[in-house]
Amino acid sequence: MRRKGFIIFSIIILFLFTSAVYSDEGMYLPFKIPSQIFQKMKKMGFTLSESDVFSMSKPSLSQAAIIIDGGTGSFVSENGLILTNHHVAFMAAQRQSSVKANLIKNGFLAKTIKDEIPAPGYKAYILKEVKDVTSRVLKGVSKKLPPKKRYEVIEKNIKKIIKKEEGKSGDYKCRVNSFFGGVKYYLSKYLVLRDIRIVYIPSRNIGEYGGEIDNWMWPRHTGDFSFLRAYVAPNGRPADYSKNNVPYKPEIYLKISARDIDPGDFAMVLGYPGRTERFLTSEEVKYYINFYYPEGIRILGKWLEILEGDAKKSKEAAIKNAGMIKGLSNAYKNYQGMLQGLKKMNLIAKKKKEEKKLLKYVDSDPQLKKEYGNVLNELFTLIKESQNLSKKSRFLSLFSRSSSLLRFALTINKWSIEKRKKDMDREPGYMKRDVPNLKLSLRLGQMGLYIPTDKKVMKFFLKELLNAPSEMRSKVVDNLIKDKSDKGIDEFIDNLYKNTKLQDLSYRMRAFNLSRKSLLKLNDSFINLASKLQVELDTLKDKSETLAGKMLLVRRKYMELLLKYKKGLIYPDANRTLRLNIGVVKGYSPKDAVFYLPQTTLKGVMEKDTGKWPFIVPERIKEICKTKDFGDYIDPELKMVPVDFLTTNDSTGGNSGSPLINKYGELMGLLFDGNFESIASDFNFMPSITRTISVDSRYILFVADKVDHATNVLKELDIVR
Amino acid sequence: MRRKGFIIFSIIILFLFTSAVYSDEGMYLPFKIPSQIFQKMKKMGFTLSESDVFSMSKPSLSQAAIIIDGGTGSFVSENGLILTNHHVAFMAAQRQSSVKANLIKNGFLAKTIKDEIPAPGYKAYILKEVKDVTSRVLKGVSKKLPPKKRYEVIEKNIKKIIKKEEGKSGDYKCRVNSFFGGVKYYLSKYLVLRDIRIVYIPSRNIGEYGGEIDNWMWPRHTGDFSFLRAYVAPNGRPADYSKNNVPYKPEIYLKISARDIDPGDFAMVLGYPGRTERFLTSEEVKYYINFYYPEGIRILGKWLEILEGDAKKSKEAAIKNAGMIKGLSNAYKNYQGMLQGLKKMNLIAKKKKEEKKLLKYVDSDPQLKKEYGNVLNELFTLIKESQNLSKKSRFLSLFSRSSSLLRFALTINKWSIEKRKKDMDREPGYMKRDVPNLKLSLRLGQMGLYIPTDKKVMKFFLKELLNAPSEMRSKVVDNLIKDKSDKGIDEFIDNLYKNTKLQDLSYRMRAFNLSRKSLLKLNDSFINLASKLQVELDTLKDKSETLAGKMLLVRRKYMELLLKYKKGLIYPDANRTLRLNIGVVKGYSPKDAVFYLPQTTLKGVMEKDTGKWPFIVPERIKEICKTKDFGDYIDPELKMVPVDFLTTNDSTGGNSGSPLINKYGELMGLLFDGNFESIASDFNFMPSITRTISVDSRYILFVADKVDHATNVLKELDIVR
Repeated sequence: MRRKGFIIFSIIILFLFTSAVYSDEGMYLPFKIPSQIFQKMKKMGFTLSESDVFSMSKPSLSQAAIIIDGGTGSFVSENGLILTNHHVAFMAAQRQSSVKANLIKNGFLAKTIKDEIPAPGYKAYILKEVKDVTSRVLKGVSKKLPPKKRYEVIEKNIKKIIKKEEGKSGDYKCRVNSFFGGVKYYLSKYLVLRDIRIVYIPSRNIGEYGGEIDNWMWPRHTGDFSFLRAYVAPNGRPADYSKNNVPYKPEIYLKISARDIDPGDFAMVLGYPGRTERFLTSEEVKYYINFYYPEGIRILGKWLEILEGDAKKSKEAAIKNAGMIKGLSNAYKNYQGMLQGLKKMNLIAKKKKEEKKLLKYVDSDPQLKKEYGNVLNELFTLIKESQNLSKKSRFLSLFSRSSSLLRFALTINKWSIEKRKKDMDREPGYMKRDVPNLKLSLRLGQMGLYIPTDKKVMKFFLKELLNAPSEMRSKVVDNLIKDKSDKGIDEFIDNLYKNTKLQDLSYRMRAFNLSRKSLLKLNDSFINLASKLQVELDTLKDKSETLAGKMLLVRRKYMELLLKYKKGLIYPDANRTLRLNIGVVKGYSPKDAVFYLPQTTLKGVMEKDTGKWPFIVPERIKEICKTKDFGDYIDPELKMVPVDFLTTNDSTGGNSGSPLINKYGELMGLLFDGNFESIASDFNFMPSITRTISVDSRYILFVADKVDHATNVLKELDIVR
Repeated sequence: MRRKGFIIFSIIILFLFTSAVYSDEGMYLPFKIPSQIFQKMKKMGFTLSESDVFSMSKPSLSQAAIIIDGGTGSFVSENGLILTNHHVAFMAAQRQSSVKANLIKNGFLAKTIKDEIPAPGYKAYILKEVKDVTSRVLKGVSKKLPPKKRYEVIEKNIKKIIKKEEGKSGDYKCRVNSFFGGVKYYLSKYLVLRDIRIVYIPSRNIGEYGGEIDNWMWPRHTGDFSFLRAYVAPNGRPADYSKNNVPYKPEIYLKISARDIDPGDFAMVLGYPGRTERFLTSEEVKYYINFYYPEGIRILGKWLEILEGDAKKSKEAAIKNAGMIKGLSNAYKNYQGMLQGLKKMNLIAKKKKEEKKLLKYVDSDPQLKKEYGNVLNELFTLIKESQNLSKKSRFLSLFSRSSSLLRFALTINKWSIEKRKKDMDREPGYMKRDVPNLKLSLRLGQMGLYIPTDKKVMKFFLKELLNAPSEMRSKVVDNLIKDKSDKGIDEFIDNLYKNTKLQDLSYRMRAFNLSRKSLLKLNDSFINLASKLQVELDTLKDKSETLAGKMLLVRRKYMELLLKYKKGLIYPDANRTLRLNIGVVKGYSPKDAVFYLPQTTLKGVMEKDTGKWPFIVPERIKEICKTKDFGDYIDPELKMVPVDFLTTNDSTGGNSGSPLINKYGELMGLLFDGNFESIASDFNFMPSITRTISVDSRYILFVADKVDHATNVLKELDIVR
């Protein structure tokens, strides 16, 4: 719900660092590690230099950590082997699964390089350059411009920068991100590899052991890892899938540590966290608590019911809906944790108290009072306006994202409009550089498309929209459906699905290539609906951009004030750029008289076994426990094979699959979750209970070796003992 | 299900003590504390002498610990004040509750001694003497007697001993218990006080905080305590309730410790544990796992549903069914814990392994082989027979205990038969000495009698009986109900309840006093049913006694062998006689990566608050937390008011309300529960996870002082800091 792109006009404040009380809060920019943080790392035993962590002139760890799908991964061999989470590779497995060969359930192991199969839609983003583009982004932006115009100028500047920096090879993608609410803009340039293959996925009973029950929970016993591989053309350049492609040779890869891990051990995370909201006002927090999360929980709950209902009835639906179920379930539990956590930490009161102090600070100085005396009120007014707008557009926007067919139709329709414009005038996401992605999404959508479910989901959201208060409804939909009874809605939907061919992949791809005129001539029911809805959506978008243009000024002033008051902020909110954070292996107390130890073992895997999903221990593991064939994977203190562990690192969604790096610069674990008690840490870091959950590298090696006999994979790794 | 009264004919083996590996397993006889155990106590810092713990010639701690209702209590003032659990005093509160004055919900505090109200049906048993009566019990018992006769001789011997030892005053009750499966018989002589009054019960939101959800669970935050008082006639002798009665002056009472409690601290428990089964065979364990507990869980679950269903609908039912619901819920959770625990500890396999070793030991020596070569087989044969019999009689015996009215009728009918016999020929439980108890149960039954519930319960068990396999059914019932449809059963029940007056208390008491002839003349439908059912029940009892007579020989041989093989056993199974056990304050690990600390605090009480039963924190406690009005009840290490704590003591049902005694001989806590993981410890003690849960004496003082302002109670106590 947070508006993106709030910016300010001049750079008054640079990074100032507080000498705050110690905690492991902080998602630092690897190219600007605060000096006291690096000193702390050194004190904790970290043996490498700053340039080993990040450098643009030599291979550094930051290039080993890559973006892969919605998560993070890392190179772990000279031949482009990528280690990431099982749940990050999950969609690839789903897309390669059929009722017959169920990769999700059984896992997969390519015994030779020839057996590796494509991970459809997966791309690896390798960070090649980071640069400050603040002045270029803000060029020509002045106070005098009307709000909407302000917004547009910045949007156009960013487009220009990206176009220039990406160049013409098509090998690179650039992203411009705002930091500290627009105080700074940095461009990240990535080499994008688009032929990714599946090498080795353990069975679901290891990779997703504990399922939704254990998701976000400690103690955890999940072997949440998978191996992929990046391929390039024989000439070394990125290429689409081809049999002739060869494994990519990364400039750097991580060694795998098989060393002992103990409480107190140092751990550094390099990854791509998606979003935190650590600098919100009390009014924004209130909105999350009173509206956003409760409503989200309601909607997600019903949506999940539909998907799971069909999955129970049909094997085909089970496979096709699996990815969506997994994603929504995760969000569902996340939202519940957020709501619980936000209430428990009493964040509204806390923020109000801070704001009171801030106002007192402003009042204490006539100069400050003159400049900032009204900023919080102004901000609150705009926030209210923005919340009203998002409430108003809520039902329409939910509806427009509900059915796969409708999403396809909106994409095709929008592209048929945008394609007529000059590239630089098109909406972001619909420029020339985006076309491959748009096509890919249309293609991949096929793998999660199950028409009976799609219809039910469409009906649910349509009913929500039709029954909304009048100012939140869609005139288009109201006109199309006069009879709002179940029967009326069913008839409408039946007609809609009868008079479309968008479920057909090749038809869909042809439609994408048509001119606006030819597209409309198809007279496809879904395209017709999308074409009408788009007008309404555009109106809302206009309003939202105008508001964002207004917000620019006020938010900037507020951030200025906050930075003055706090004497600087140590790190910016997460925004899916590369971040580094540090921590130690450490347990926590979730409640009175209970203490969670920071490491789990195979003993706990066996304890949880019920023989029923999600707690089915594979026979091979039972056998190993019986014969004590643990190899040399026993932890000397735990006296058992270690499985997962907790650290104090500050992480969030997007960090999944991030390498945990020990003091020697080796991969000691694979980040895959946070604990339930700390979900709301996205809003407010709580040192005593915020923990990151990772798979122990020794468990990865143990499973690969003893359970799945993935000797080829193990041979390729550089294992350090 | 365990047969009582297995005995052997000669005492070959006395108490021999193994020097087993250390654990806190063991429920010792206070008058025979094994010397190495007392040495251990001394080493742990215990400052008193053996005779301070138990003596028949001077006041000792063993007289401060008394039997009260189904639990244990202790004297804590010179004026007969008794400290026991809230859940032990619960039935008294229920019997004094009406919809208007809800003692269960609101608690009760008598501000002066005149305000104290009767605890109906409650009695206090003070241990006065213990003596070995083995030879007297076994007098005249010979191998040649037929099995049934053997059983009867012992029964008669015991009756004679009791009659003689109780004397004629009516002030004493004696019990003869068998130890080590009949190796020894001890008589315990108790002074019985029968005017018990309620002094102070905290509100249910303290005394039962956490309710059924937290029952058997750690971490626990329950203030499970209550104060009662024992009264006697002005002449100092036991008496029924009378206004003229005066507080009893115990020979000894316990001081209350307000000292700090820390992990590792010594704790001794004196109490009356009900039953353990530590010496069973694999076949008996198998029966529990495969039949007894699963069936018990099924029956209890349905029974509870009926009681709770009505309690939700009617306030009257809520109060009247409360006691039964509490009791059954407790058993329900207990059974589940037993079943889980027995399976988890793999006890069948463990026992089989032990038995294999035992057989090997027998085989190793021709003399042993000759004598004991066949004992295990013989025992198994009889066990099978006994299990078949109890399966067969199961439905009938369940039915006979289902409805309150039927239980009343069976008691009255049985007494009308037994009263015609000479006292010594009557069945135990129906002798002259038992008459007051029989009457009491008929009277108290009124307080838990809610006819709509009673009918539903009757119907459920009737259906079970009617649908049982033919050999398990009742001919009487089959003849009475020809139409086994719901309609037929309902008609039968309606008639039954229409043609009885047993729901009327005075009618019931009159019926109890009638001769057999006059009773039958009443033509009361329930009496008529009971009269017919009793014939069937007696047949089953006959069979069971014959079997018990056979078992005597074989079980004795087996125990002989076991004692030889184990070179003695350190303590006998619990049998509701006074026991002593020792332990230390200690946490435990319930599962991989989780550690439970041994002490909870008021912080945890607040954490659990939901505002909904069973987690409603009283306003007064919230206020105290806000104003930090904790008095001097803060634990120096926990930095908060302590609530409950764990110790390694070996305890079981019946121990509820037992004093935990510190090394100075002062009451440091009040035992009220065990942890869920260790419920099955009754069968097999597991040192690593078996824990006893107690209320910290400081929490009792804190609640009495700061929450309930029970200054009169506090003043009466002898508090040591």
